[in-house]
Amino acid sequence: MNKEFEFIKIIKKTLENSKYIGDDCANLSKQNITISIDSLIEDVHFSRKYMTAEEIAKKALIVNISDILASGAKPKYALIALSGNLDKNFVQDFYKGINSVAKKYKVEIVGGDLTSGDKISISITAIGDSKKRRISSRKNAKEDYIVAVCGEFGSSAEGLECLEKNINNEYFIQKHKLPELFPKTSEAIAKKSKHPYAMMDSSDGLFDCLYQISKESNLKINIEYDKIPKKTKNKDFVIYGGEDYALVVAIHKDDFKKIKGLKQIGSCSSGQGVYIDEKKTEYKGFKHFE
Amino acid sequence: MNKEFEFIKIIKKTLENSKYIGDDCANLSKQNITISIDSLIEDVHFSRKYMTAEEIAKKALIVNISDILASGAKPKYALIALSGNLDKNFVQDFYKGINSVAKKYKVEIVGGDLTSGDKISISITAIGDSKKRRISSRKNAKEDYIVAVCGEFGSSAEGLECLEKNINNEYFIQKHKLPELFPKTSEAIAKKSKHPYAMMDSSDGLFDCLYQISKESNLKINIEYDKIPKKTKNKDFVIYGGEDYALVVAIHKDDFKKIKGLKQIGSCSSGQGVYIDEKKTEYKGFKHFE
Repeated sequence: MNKEFEFIKIIKKTLENSKYIGDDCANLSKQNITISIDSLIEDVHFSRKYMTAEEIAKKALIVNISDILASGAKPKYALIALSGNLDKNFVQDFYKGINSVAKKYKVEIVGGDLTSGDKISISITAIGDSKKRRISSRKNAKEDYIVAVCGEFGSSAEGLECLEKNINNEYFIQKHKLPELFPKTSEAIAKKSKHPYAMMDSSDGLFDCLYQISKESNLKINIEYDKIPKKTKNKDFVIYGGEDYALVVAIHKDDFKKIKGLKQIGSCSSGQGVYIDEKKTEYKGFKHFE
Repeated sequence: MNKEFEFIKIIKKTLENSKYIGDDCANLSKQNITISIDSLIEDVHFSRKYMTAEEIAKKALIVNISDILASGAKPKYALIALSGNLDKNFVQDFYKGINSVAKKYKVEIVGGDLTSGDKISISITAIGDSKKRRISSRKNAKEDYIVAVCGEFGSSAEGLECLEKNINNEYFIQKHKLPELFPKTSEAIAKKSKHPYAMMDSSDGLFDCLYQISKESNLKINIEYDKIPKKTKNKDFVIYGGEDYALVVAIHKDDFKKIKGLKQIGSCSSGQGVYIDEKKTEYKGFKHFE
């Protein structure tokens, strides 16, 4: 079993109140916000060999904004904890990156923390405004829901391979470095949906999204491989490759029709598990603790 | 100059919108919340030689709750990012500690993140409810304000020394391990004050609080050494020692009279800098980056 899942099981058992554990974002409905926390650790999530301080910062903030968009909320604030063996240049370049992404996605930086340490470690909390929006939950998918995506799959995994093998493929390297997010599609889903929906970003890969939604909603999900938007020919990258930050959503068919920019790749039915072209498929993604 | 201050200067210059940088908590008044982020890094903030996973977790959550209390808000939610070379036992013991502190201070854990890494690193975001409360800012002190405290100073620094020198002094070791917070005093200040006030916790020492408030409010602060609540005889520990999590507040004299549990140690006047018994005193605290 994937150790991360095992740890989450332990956490759920140990916390007396764990109703919020499960989705990437917590929906605090009284405060009209959704909120998430995510860490990026040097040599686990990024390498300073391939990325400058500015690029690391951009990526760190983008992946957190992506979590908020996947919840259906409007990204609004972020807090940034940065630790490591920091110097003036690193801090300045890092915050240049933060500033440019914050500006692009209209996010205000409302707090931070600086500490020393060996390796660079970044923890970002992102906050979204959920007012007048329907918020996602992995538990929300239902039979006959359509499985649809916005964005493409496998490019980041291929881009990473290019970087590691020193292959000069500008397209994939750029894709790996800075994911493009889909705020308009997220907003359309959150504002136009009349029914509950389950949305995730593909930070841990397409399969992980399908697996989580299928498990939490207790449904079978089948997708058609040919319908997945992709540029790479490597099937493992398309299905299991992470860090694309595309949106994956299980949505009512009437709502699906109203949203521009979504492409159907499959559907939900009674049963369990993830199927690709009606063939049962198992977990094989990136595992933090194995 | 202290490197952390220098870094914060750089950040303020680099971010186009940095109005929230300055206080430990950001006051998001539209959402009726205050929010803060804080990291604890192995061998910088704690050592596994002296503390179990459960104790580390308790301390990590307590220091974040302390930030919320120092803002004047009511601690309500927390998100926890944990990274390191984790195993089942560590995760379980860590979350036992989280659960017990969460229960004690009525805080809900609404999110988390687990990642691998070399050393243990913990980032916690705490959220407080600011509804019907007056929220602190370091800029709020004014001439003739009273400087008062709740809690005592120097015990944690002495406790740490006992631990490091292997002196078996149960009282100080306990004090160092698990600070007691002051939710009732914080609530009384936030609810009863008719005037703006400046409050901090003494996580970085008494002097740091006085220095920050004096600088941000552009005032002279004078305190009387004999009036500081303390058990240790080491003056450096009392003035500069961190991690006591006592409350330090500059407050209007009419409001001061209404609050139980506060002890006056000094006052604000026109001028600049921190004075102890009318002698100008300079910064000498724990510096993360020097």
